[in-house]
Amino acid sequence: MAPRSTKDTAILLIDCPDRKGLVAAIGEFLYRHNANILHADQHQDPERNVFLMRVEWDLAGFDIELADFPTHFGPLAERYGMRWKLERSDRPHRLALFVSKYDHCLADLLYRHQSGELACEIALVVANHPDASRWADFHGVPFHHVPVEATGKDAAEQKQLDLLAANGVDLVILARYMQVLSPRFVAAYPQRIINVHHSFLPAFSGAKPYHRAYERGVKLIGATSHYVTDELDEGPIIEQAVVRVSHRDTLDDLLEKGRDMEKAVLSRAVRWHIDHRILVYGRKTVVFD
Amino acid sequence: MAPRSTKDTAILLIDCPDRKGLVAAIGEFLYRHNANILHADQHQDPERNVFLMRVEWDLAGFDIELADFPTHFGPLAERYGMRWKLERSDRPHRLALFVSKYDHCLADLLYRHQSGELACEIALVVANHPDASRWADFHGVPFHHVPVEATGKDAAEQKQLDLLAANGVDLVILARYMQVLSPRFVAAYPQRIINVHHSFLPAFSGAKPYHRAYERGVKLIGATSHYVTDELDEGPIIEQAVVRVSHRDTLDDLLEKGRDMEKAVLSRAVRWHIDHRILVYGRKTVVFD
Amino acid sequence: MAPRSTKDTAILLIDCPDRKGLVAAIGEFLYRHNANILHADQHQDPERNVFLMRVEWDLAGFDIELADFPTHFGPLAERYGMRWKLERSDRPHRLALFVSKYDHCLADLLYRHQSGELACEIALVVANHPDASRWADFHGVPFHHVPVEATGKDAAEQKQLDLLAANGVDLVILARYMQVLSPRFVAAYPQRIINVHHSFLPAFSGAKPYHRAYERGVKLIGATSHYVTDELDEGPIIEQAVVRVSHRDTLDDLLEKGRDMEKAVLSRAVRWHIDHRILVYGRKTVVFD
Amino acid sequence: MAPRSTKDTAILLIDCPDRKGLVAAIGEFLYRHNANILHADQHQDPERNVFLMRVEWDLAGFDIELADFPTHFGPLAERYGMRWKLERSDRPHRLALFVSKYDHCLADLLYRHQSGELACEIALVVANHPDASRWADFHGVPFHHVPVEATGKDAAEQKQLDLLAANGVDLVILARYMQVLSPRFVAAYPQRIINVHHSFLPAFSGAKPYHRAYERGVKLIGATSHYVTDELDEGPIIEQAVVRVSHRDTLDDLLEKGRDMEKAVLSRAVRWHIDHRILVYGRKTVVFD
Repeated sequence: MAPRSTKDTAILLIDCPDRKGLVAAIGEFLYRHNANILHADQHQDPERNVFLMRVEWDLAGFDIELADFPTHFGPLAERYGMRWKLERSDRPHRLALFVSKYDHCLADLLYRHQSGELACEIALVVANHPDASRWADFHGVPFHHVPVEATGKDAAEQKQLDLLAANGVDLVILARYMQVLSPRFVAAYPQRIINVHHSFLPAFSGAKPYHRAYERGVKLIGATSHYVTDELDEGPIIEQAVVRVSHRDTLDDLLEKGRDMEKAVLSRAVRWHIDHRILVYGRKTVVFD
Repeated sequence: MAPRSTKDTAILLIDCPDRKGLVAAIGEFLYRHNANILHADQHQDPERNVFLMRVEWDLAGFDIELADFPTHFGPLAERYGMRWKLERSDRPHRLALFVSKYDHCLADLLYRHQSGELACEIALVVANHPDASRWADFHGVPFHHVPVEATGKDAAEQKQLDLLAANGVDLVILARYMQVLSPRFVAAYPQRIINVHHSFLPAFSGAKPYHRAYERGVKLIGATSHYVTDELDEGPIIEQAVVRVSHRDTLDDLLEKGRDMEKAVLSRAVRWHIDHRILVYGRKTVVFD
Repeated sequence: MAPRSTKDTAILLIDCPDRKGLVAAIGEFLYRHNANILHADQHQDPERNVFLMRVEWDLAGFDIELADFPTHFGPLAERYGMRWKLERSDRPHRLALFVSKYDHCLADLLYRHQSGELACEIALVVANHPDASRWADFHGVPFHHVPVEATGKDAAEQKQLDLLAANGVDLVILARYMQVLSPRFVAAYPQRIINVHHSFLPAFSGAKPYHRAYERGVKLIGATSHYVTDELDEGPIIEQAVVRVSHRDTLDDLLEKGRDMEKAVLSRAVRWHIDHRILVYGRKTVVFD
Repeated sequence: MAPRSTKDTAILLIDCPDRKGLVAAIGEFLYRHNANILHADQHQDPERNVFLMRVEWDLAGFDIELADFPTHFGPLAERYGMRWKLERSDRPHRLALFVSKYDHCLADLLYRHQSGELACEIALVVANHPDASRWADFHGVPFHHVPVEATGKDAAEQKQLDLLAANGVDLVILARYMQVLSPRFVAAYPQRIINVHHSFLPAFSGAKPYHRAYERGVKLIGATSHYVTDELDEGPIIEQAVVRVSHRDTLDDLLEKGRDMEKAVLSRAVRWHIDHRILVYGRKTVVFD
């Protein structure tokens, strides 16, 4: 994985039809404006004729004010039909961590944030159980208990959305949050809600995946992190991992082994998203590592 | 994994309700008859109250003729309600390898057999394409081309069953054999037909799993070896493996990476079966390694 | 992995020359005293003619007071030349966690203890840096700051040994503790000090393993948990893990990836030790899983 | 992994000091000559200020004759101080496979070549034991038995070098070839001799690695493919893999499990080399996947 620069950098993410001259045009644009490129990665999908690129450069010496970047880059983007985004390392993502009762992913993400692995701000923890508050308190992160009752789901979601807006959140992490979000909620944060599902998707989508894995007698169990869409467990997959199990493992052992995988795949997804390494196209992700 | 003895050994496989005194009774029986135990492994499933055991001993000094074993062991087995099987290392399994067009699993199994990894006899290769004959010829294994036409499937299966019977086959390996076996065929070899499916079951059961994995954008692809039952891809799983893929992998890359996994999970399943390490209970397997 | 029983159980660990009748004798002894065996596992090493066994039974109904066990089992043990240990699930290990500046293994072990994964008591945290106190405080574990100066190492060790004795500690975990223990200290806790080394031993033993792995250009980095002996990084290995790295990984990335492995191999070693699953023989361990 | 094009392509490999404008200059050069870029990958090592690039383009439409490429590209290369190589997909590598008694890697490479995984020509098999001839014969590859006696090593190497020259070989694969090559031989094929070592280097370099791994009681064993240099087992590492072992594995089991890893790491190294994906810098490799 490329290092996270300690410098102020800009990251340009591009998605467009593949065409001759793209690399030259982008390279020339950046060179002309005195960009010192630190990392560049690209992917071409010949089947769909798609070109995807991530390029990161040092802002020292770059001769365009980032506020004016659209003006300068716009004509080039238009010529090649690009969808593009400019991200800045000095404007880190602001995250909300949603959690229910299981706190292993929450504790793991908070630890990684504290240790400097995750270059983001954790704006708040939102939970439908009160227990997680001790972790939020320990790490000095505001905690909001928003109970979700069967009859008051809309009201609870509205309260959550208000909290997100009030706190300038731009990335929602479902850290074993056991509620299904409404289409309205999902639509408010397109490709900005990351969930961890405790199975190797598409196997055992839906409820109680470890129980079903145990009953089926699989020899490996898995976990999957993905962007949330309106279809349950069907969003673009970001990361997956598996671990070996045997007849000696009880259902409790599966749950225990699974927790370590859930932490791994969720924390990697968060890291890749906040480092602007993920591009979604179709139902898939490209992760520039 | 326990070593395959070069001595003549007997292997006793037991499956019964768990009860006090089982280990003592079996141990005492073997000791009384002067068995030199080389390996013993057992598993207790407290949920279903099942006791499963595999014990292997050196036949040198054992004071019962194996032909008389049922007479001696029968009363004990009855007392504890055991299902049991006695296997002998000097009576190796006789295998039929079924294959279609893809020959990587066939070539792999034949190589492992030649190199001494697989302590069995390969009685014949049965194929619905003629191409595999070169591998059978190279390894000196009889080859039978049995074309399977849409309209003549019953006749083809009968021909296959006749070949198996004529050759004393007791284990059928579907080494990427692209035909679904009829219930009649399956019933003739219960828990003695091993298939390799080119996905991480239960994900992508059925046709074209790599294509579907590619379209879904999974980050790991898998392969599964399992006993064949009447339900397609639903038999007890013996072994599974996965390999990491990324956006850089084309569909062809998935197929190529998949081949290595298919060889791995199928050859392990064959080895464990012929070494009498697998016990099936419910829909699951116990593999005594 | 076998489930940790919620019942009160006894665990017998045996190590002796392999001989006919061992399994029968042990099984008969337990049956005669009405033991309900929950798990039994054994290993025979034909090369060294060694027999190793772990057997766990439910104490309900067992007709020997555990205080009297040596009297009853002694004659049998003597007949077969057994080294043996009896452990009890109701007398959990008491641990001391030693830590320096890096706190990821400490935080991980404390979390796993709190979540019920580790069936032990954590008696105290001993650190030669003050920073770790926040984690001990959060989890309500006594914290002792014992600075280790170059000139006062003996005094510091004596203070540590006094703390261990005063707190009834029987297992010492070096959770990235950056000091080498003296032979006197090691001798006081034979096979009861577990260390994590941040390389795939025997590669990169000694100082700065990640730096050396980075310079050598390896494609996998590893971590190892082992019992501490007088020879640095040479004690019996309990667990190892590796993770893939590439040219895209900086030295910082190696350290970050390494932390996850260190947590994994150390926490597994701790769990296996406190569940009495590890037998040391020669320079090796047998882990009954 | 990027797909191997069925088109005629050119691959440019570049290694130079990192500098602003490099990407723009190379992109502009290729665009000006109407190259349709299929894949591009690059790596920047900020520590050593090194820029490494691999770019592959479709030759259809490219307006420079490849014979004239140096004339056109030379000035640009000089301006940036590039070391560079141009490879052509229509001029595949010609390989010699060196083998002793163990034939698993040989059989594996020949199979992969036949199945289309390896886009190269296998010019000959050279062996210091006669047994491997059956595999060469089966695949229709010329076989040369060159015995290596303790007293006649120089003569044997001269004979091997003559064979390589006569057959236009540009890549030598040591497929478990059990002889150490002389510095003279190594110097004749710099970064063009690939070896597989049966351990996880740098652990257990030298002789009998599985025996030493077995004695040390490691929990994972490995294999490593690397370029051969004058220092035994010290050349730049291309690929590594490990597999889990336990106390149940005998030394024979280690050898058996090891064979599968040896095949995996060697065949991947061969594939990456012949697809021009490997750049060596310092003691390390960059593998553009």
